[in-house]
Parts: sequence; C-alpha cells; structure tokens
Amino acid sequence: MQDIAKINSGVQDYYSENFAQCYGCGRLNEFGHQIKTNWDGDETVTFFASKKFQTAVPGVVYGGLLASIIDCHGTGSASLALARANGIVLDEFNAPRCVTASLKVDYKKPTPIDIPLEIRGVIKEVKGRKVIVEARLIANGEICVTGEIIAVQVFDDFGK
Amino acid sequence: MQDIAKINSGVQDYYSENFAQCYGCGRLNEFGHQIKTNWDGDETVTFFASKKFQTAVPGVVYGGLLASIIDCHGTGSASLALARANGIVLDEFNAPRCVTASLKVDYKKPTPIDIPLEIRGVIKEVKGRKVIVEARLIANGEICVTGEIIAVQVFDDFGK
Repeated sequence: MQDIAKINSGVQDYYSENFAQCYGCGRLNEFGHQIKTNWDGDETVTFFASKKFQTAVPGVVYGGLLASIIDCHGTGSASLALARANGIVLDEFNAPRCVTASLKVDYKKPTPIDIPLEIRGVIKEVKGRKVIVEARLIANGEICVTGEIIAVQVFDDFGK
Repeated sequence: MQDIAKINSGVQDYYSENFAQCYGCGRLNEFGHQIKTNWDGDETVTFFASKKFQTAVPGVVYGGLLASIIDCHGTGSASLALARANGIVLDEFNAPRCVTASLKVDYKKPTPIDIPLEIRGVIKEVKGRKVIVEARLIANGEICVTGEIIAVQVFDDFGK
C-alpha cells in the first residue's frame, strides 16, 4: 500500500481532455482536488489530504467534501472496472468515463482533519454501462464514512 | 420568492461560533460557500451560484458540489425545523445545529453551470434530535438533482 501512496497518477490521467476538467478529479482543473484512483488488488484506492479550512466544525472534515471525494473515487473506480471488464489497456486517453447517477453516503463518525485519508472501493456490479461501487473512507485506521455509488458510462455528448 | 432571494441571511447566521466554521454554510469560514437557508412557507429554500471552475465536464456543475450544497441545505432545514418544533425564536446564537448522518443524492440530469440554482427542502419527519429532509435542486425551472438527508442535532461536544 505504501507503494501506491507514492504513485502520483491514476485512472483520471487517462480521461480524454473534455472529461479531465472535473473539479474533483480532473488533471486539467488547476483549482480542483485532482484525486488519483488506482487498483490495489481487487479493491480500488484513493488517498486524499483535506485543507484546514475544509472543516465542518473545528477539527472535523466537512462532510460535503467527503461526499465529493467518495463520489469521484466511485466514478474513478467504475472507470477502472469497465476497463478491466472490457480488456482495455489504459493509454492516452482511452479510459471509460463515468458520471454518478446516485450517491449514498453514511457518516459513521467525525473524520479528523489534518490526517491523510484513504478511500477504498469494492466493485459490486458491472452491467453494461452501469457500475456499482461500495466505498469506505478511513482515517487513523478507522472507518469514518461509507458510501455506495451507482455510476454510468457517458460519452462525448454528455452535457451537450 | 423574489423577496427571499434578496435576503442575504439565513438560519446559519444564528449558529454559535463553534458551529459557524463549516466550509459549506459557516458565516465565519471566509473560504467557504456561506449558503443561507430560509423558510418559504412550509418549504425551505437556499439559492446558490456555482463558479466556472466548479465543473464536472465543461458546462455542467460538479456533482460533488451539488451534493455538498444539498447536504448543507439539509442541515440548515433541519435546524429551522427543530427551532419551529421547539418554539425557538432565532436570535444570536441559539439555532439548533445538526450534522448529517446520511445523505442520498440522485442526479436526474446535468446541472447547467453559470445559472442561479435553487434548492428547496421539505421536512418529512422531526423526531427528537432527528430530522429527515427531502430536497430538490432546480436550474432553469427543471429539477436536476433530488436528495434525502437524515440530520441529527449535535451539541458543543461534537467532534471533541
């Protein structure tokens, strides 16, 4: 896991330009979080560090940000799952791009700020364009948030 | 409704100092969204304008931000509901403060960027410390996102 933590690339680096603008995970969004999602065996993983002002109450990370990171980790995981299911070897810029149809987040305990966060995903289902991902967010070895994302693959006409 | 849109205050202005730091809705968080939630009859309403870089793909608002705004609108609505249920007249700084236990968001269609967003809430249940809020996010007269928030009142020891 230490090796993965050091890798500063992820499936998001293989999105086409139009799909790489996302505030959560787009490599081309200079203002965004630029999260990176990778396989770790059969699970997916993203690491994230929040900023001090991204707070709910002092000392606790803002829940909306946690939902956002779980959301983007979910679509990144879905992209990895679709690539694996369809035998796609990631290259510039062929990663399947998914958006979220539905996001469910349960806050189990306050997430401490100023601590590296680990978000892990399990692929529950891949069916055509649809992928279901279960996620858990871990701080200090404890699960603070769980989530389920239903992601759907989109193509260049999305949002147009 | 036009009158409410002009009001630059909301229940969040009545949170105590420790509870007014939230990145989504804290009046004391200079980096945050500072959303303002008010009653509009039996519904609650928040208005929000996203920034150009808060995008999913070009022209579409980032889903994580929409989840965040629905989240904070939900806790703000829950605060209003608890105040009403308990006969609390809002004053400095006596608003009940809720956090989110569970958030469910369904993205119905892409939310256009550069358009004022209206988030409306319906109080489904108030039971002790728990409030359930249904929300819908409207752009250009169309519902783009729906949500359900289970919010729970917290006190000064939250996160400590």
